[in-house]
Amino acid sequence: MKLYDLKAGMNPRRVRIFLAEKGIEVPIAPIDMMKGENQTPEFLKLNPLGTLPVLELDDGTILTESVAICRYFEFSKPEPNLFGHGGVEQARVEMWNRRLELELMRPLAEQFRHLSPFWKDRLTQIPEYGEAQRTRLGQVMEWLDRELATRPYMAGERYTIADITAQCAFVLGKNTGAPIPDGLHNLKRWWDLVSSRPTARA
Amino acid sequence: MKLYDLKAGMNPRRVRIFLAEKGIEVPIAPIDMMKGENQTPEFLKLNPLGTLPVLELDDGTILTESVAICRYFEFSKPEPNLFGHGGVEQARVEMWNRRLELELMRPLAEQFRHLSPFWKDRLTQIPEYGEAQRTRLGQVMEWLDRELATRPYMAGERYTIADITAQCAFVLGKNTGAPIPDGLHNLKRWWDLVSSRPTARA
Repeated sequence: MKLYDLKAGMNPRRVRIFLAEKGIEVPIAPIDMMKGENQTPEFLKLNPLGTLPVLELDDGTILTESVAICRYFEFSKPEPNLFGHGGVEQARVEMWNRRLELELMRPLAEQFRHLSPFWKDRLTQIPEYGEAQRTRLGQVMEWLDRELATRPYMAGERYTIADITAQCAFVLGKNTGAPIPDGLHNLKRWWDLVSSRPTARA
Repeated sequence: MKLYDLKAGMNPRRVRIFLAEKGIEVPIAPIDMMKGENQTPEFLKLNPLGTLPVLELDDGTILTESVAICRYFEFSKPEPNLFGHGGVEQARVEMWNRRLELELMRPLAEQFRHLSPFWKDRLTQIPEYGEAQRTRLGQVMEWLDRELATRPYMAGERYTIADITAQCAFVLGKNTGAPIPDGLHNLKRWWDLVSSRPTARA
C-alpha cells in the first residue's frame, strides 16, 4: 500500500490527520507539484485528474478523493469511529462534512486560486469571482459561529471527519488572507480545541 | 417523516431517484422556490442555508444534503445496495460520486448560474467564470467517455449513486445549453442505459 501525498495540500492533509486519528501508518510517496510530478504520464495513469492524494492498494487498486480514501480506512479499522455510528449519526456527519466542503472549503480554495499571485500563471484568474467568494466567507463563518454555540464539535458532541474537513480548510484560510475573524468566539473555541489535538500537524 | 422537495431541482431529483430505486415512499412537501418558500423564517429554521432537499424525521431530526439523506436510507433499507459493499467498493463508489459532483455537476451548475437569464436578478453573475466552466465541461465529458469505454456504469459493473449523480447533472446540462456532444459514444450509451430505467423520471 502506498499513499501519494502533497505535504502542503489541503486535501492530502485531511487524509493524514484521519490516519493519525485512526493510528494507521501507510508508506508515503511524496509528490512535488512545483516540479510537475503530478502531471507526468506515470502519475496521470494513476489519476487522470492529476489531483492528490492517491492511495494505491497492494493489488493495484487506485483510490482518489480524500473522503473516499478515508472511508476505505474507516471500513478496514472502524475504531475510533470518525464517520458516525448508525443511520442518523452517519447522515448527520455526512451532512456536516458536505456543508463544510461546499460552504467553507470550496470558497476558501477559490478565493486562493483566483486572488493569490501563486496561481497567477497557473490558471486564468478571475479576481471578481475570488472577491465574491471572500465576501461569502464572512457570512459562512458567522453562521458556523452561531451553530457552534450549541455543541463542541461540527457534527455534535464528538470529533469526526467533519471537524477534520473544517480544520484543513481553516489552515488554508489562515495562510491565504482569510482567517477566522476576531469576535467569533464559538468558532475560535472550536479552533483551539481541534488544533491542539496531537494529530493536528500530521 | 417528510421530504421537503423542489420538483425541478437537480439535487432533490437525486434523492427522488434514489428512493425510487430503493422502493421507499416518503410523504413529500413541495417547496416553491419561485415564491420564496425556501426563504421564509419557518424554512430557514429547518435549513439555514435555504437549500433543498430537506428530510424531517418523526422525532424532529433534520437532515440536509442529498447524499447525506440518501445515506440515511441506505442504512435503513440496505438493499438494493447503491453505495457499495465492503471497503474497496464503498470507496470506489464514493470516489466516483465525488469526481462526478466536483468535475461534472459543479461546472454544469455554475455555467447555468453565471450564464442563464434565469439567474440574472438572483445573483451577481460573472459571465467570464461561466464560460470558463463551460470550456472545462468539454474536457470533462471527453474524459468520462474514455472512462466508460471500460465498463457499463460510472463506478463499475452495476448502477450506483454515482450514476444517479451523473444523470441528474446531465438533465441540468440538457436543459441549460450544455448537452452531451455528438460523437461521445460511450457516454451516450451510458446515458441511454440510465435514462431508460423506470426510476429516471422520479
